[in-house]
This record gives sequence, C-alpha cells and structure tokens, in this order.
Amino acid sequence: MAYKETYPSALLTEAVEAISSLPGVGRRSALRLALHLLKQPAENVHHFTSAINHLRDDVRYCRCCRMISDEELCSICSNRNRDPRTICVVESVRDVMSIESTGQYHGVYHVLGGIISPIAGVGPSDLSIRELTERVQALENPSGAEVILALSGDVEGETTAFYIYRQIEASGVRITTLARGLGFGDDLEYADSLTLGRALTNRLIFKP
Amino acid sequence: MAYKETYPSALLTEAVEAISSLPGVGRRSALRLALHLLKQPAENVHHFTSAINHLRDDVRYCRCCRMISDEELCSICSNRNRDPRTICVVESVRDVMSIESTGQYHGVYHVLGGIISPIAGVGPSDLSIRELTERVQALENPSGAEVILALSGDVEGETTAFYIYRQIEASGVRITTLARGLGFGDDLEYADSLTLGRALTNRLIFKP
Repeated sequence: MAYKETYPSALLTEAVEAISSLPGVGRRSALRLALHLLKQPAENVHHFTSAINHLRDDVRYCRCCRMISDEELCSICSNRNRDPRTICVVESVRDVMSIESTGQYHGVYHVLGGIISPIAGVGPSDLSIRELTERVQALENPSGAEVILALSGDVEGETTAFYIYRQIEASGVRITTLARGLGFGDDLEYADSLTLGRALTNRLIFKP
Repeated sequence: MAYKETYPSALLTEAVEAISSLPGVGRRSALRLALHLLKQPAENVHHFTSAINHLRDDVRYCRCCRMISDEELCSICSNRNRDPRTICVVESVRDVMSIESTGQYHGVYHVLGGIISPIAGVGPSDLSIRELTERVQALENPSGAEVILALSGDVEGETTAFYIYRQIEASGVRITTLARGLGFGDDLEYADSLTLGRALTNRLIFKP
C-alpha cells in the first residue's frame, strides 16, 4: 500500500518534505497535513506559519532560570511565594511543565537546555551549567539552601548529575535527587529487577 | 498525567494552539513539536513555514482535471500515452496518488475536490461537477468513452455517485464504478456480512 514517492507538484513535494522533517511525522502523515492545509483559508495558514515564526524569532528565556518566558524574569522566578533557595535542576522546559502540573513544588527551577551526551556532541559548555554554578555561589548561607537534581535516570542523566554535583559540592549547598522506586500503584510482579532492588535498598518508614 | 493547560509564554501558547489545530495532532504532540522547532536553527524554521506558505499561496490546479499541478495542464492530462476518453472521477488529490501508485490505470482523472455532504454543508456546486459534465459533453462519440466513478462506498460517496450519474447519463457515456468485494487475500471469517453478501451477488467467473 506504499505510495510511490512522486507528487504531482514541486510545491507539494517541498511542503511534504518540510513537514516530514518534524519528529514522529512520516511522509504519509505529512502529505495528509499538506493537503489539509491546502483546503484551509489562506489567512488560517498564514496565522499558523506566523505563530511558528514568532515563537522561533521572538522567544525569550528567563535571565535567572533559562525557562521560556515573555518577560526578562519568568513568572516563577518573579513569584514571591516561591522559595528562591530551593532550585530544581531540569533538562528542559517540558520538565518544568511536568513538575508544575503536580502542584507539589514551591521552589524555583534551573533549565539546563539539554543533557551531557558525548554521542550527540553535547558538552557541559553547551548547557547552562556555568549559570547554575554562579547562582549557587551567589546564595547566602548555602548550607540552608537546596539543589534538586531532577534529571532522567539514564546514563546521560546520571553523568550530567554527577558533573553538576562536582561543580557545586564545595559550596556546601544541600544536593538532593528525585526518589526512585516503584511507581505509585505499581504491581511488584511487573517492576523490573533494578527498580525493585533500588526500592528495597531505599526503603522508607511505613506511615499508615 | 495530564499537563495543566498553562504555558510559560504567550508565544508558546499561540504556537501550540496553531499546531494543535492540525488534524490528529493533540496539545501534547503540539507542545513537543513547538519545543522541537524552538531548538532548530532559525533558517530551518523559516524554510519550514515558507514551504507551507508557498504551497498555499502558489498552488495551481490543472484546468482540465483539477489535480494539483505546477503547469496549466497536469502531467497526466498532458501525457499522450494516457487515454483521454477514460475519465476516473475521484474525491481528492490523494485518491489520484493512490490509483497512480497501483500502476494499473492508463486513463485520466477528474478531481471533485470533495464529496456531497449535507451535514458538512457541501453541495454539488461546491465541487467540480459542472466541469465534469462539460468535459463529458465535449467528448466525441461518447458511447465509446467511459467515466469511472471511483468514490468511497459510504452514503456520501454513493449519493455523489448517483448525482453525477444523473448529470451525465443522457450523454450515453459508459458509466462504471470500482469493483466491491473481498479484499485481495482476505479471510472469509473476518469479512463483514455486507461485503460478503455483495461479493456473492457480484461473483466473477473463476479464471485459474
């Protein structure tokens, strides 16, 4: 059922190629989207493309935490009800949104903008680690402050966490990481042995 | 695991809303795509949006069959090896591409640009049915020519086929439709009873 890769028009070919460059969008979906856009009123299509251009061209990042922001200081950093002495270090903007959606966190963030990955050619200087170090060094009474390393549990996440740990440990700030264990409501039967082992090692006092 | 629908920036909100207006793209996918575009070099993003704008603004349709085309006459209508007296009537550009990919068809097409649908507010005058009627009336010796109604098998497709049939039957052209029956390689067990019934009624001479 594969389409031959011949499109009836060069304009359509270019649009399909551009759309299929998006992650997770194949050429068939791209064709479907291109033909959908073709059926829309021209002003809708222009609105669509200019929203994307505006985002790319005019986006700003918070000067403190590097979160996407319309102001110089993001709404979290400028919120006086947030604790500026608890800094949660995350890889991306999406992680901030995930943690914010829990409603459980009242500190501030530091967005690295990626993760250390020799394979992908991303080193510490490509991330906002120096800015984080400066932020930590600027903390008054650092032993009463906390940096939460909320990075993913894979090799790259662990490497990045370790690198940051080495950069800031001398400051005396409290350095924590997210709890790892069984997911809430998870069945023992379906847990992988590494997670189960960690959950046993890091067992918590039972509070009924 | 649902994100709260609060984005950290108005620009991001607008881009996510624009992207999620595409069919089959939810808000989470739209956010993922927006953050992906944000990470790309600006010129890539501009190339992406301008390919879409060019398609929408500069697209042309074949003056004969209404297929998307870069020329006044599409590559199929202008191909002397195609039989201009066999006209396959389809709903959309995609249908032409599907049929072309079979490599089995050597006639020409007529793209309606939609299907008659009272619910969606699409009537005969919104489609290129008048152009089809004129094309059929212009045929010399119409009884030796053929119009294939290759429309979908649902109520709207059948309605459209019947409407076109009434418009062109007086011309004396041969009017056919696609064979309906079991799919090639289909198992009887999994065929729906309507299809199986039609396949029995329209049974073919066995040619081993």
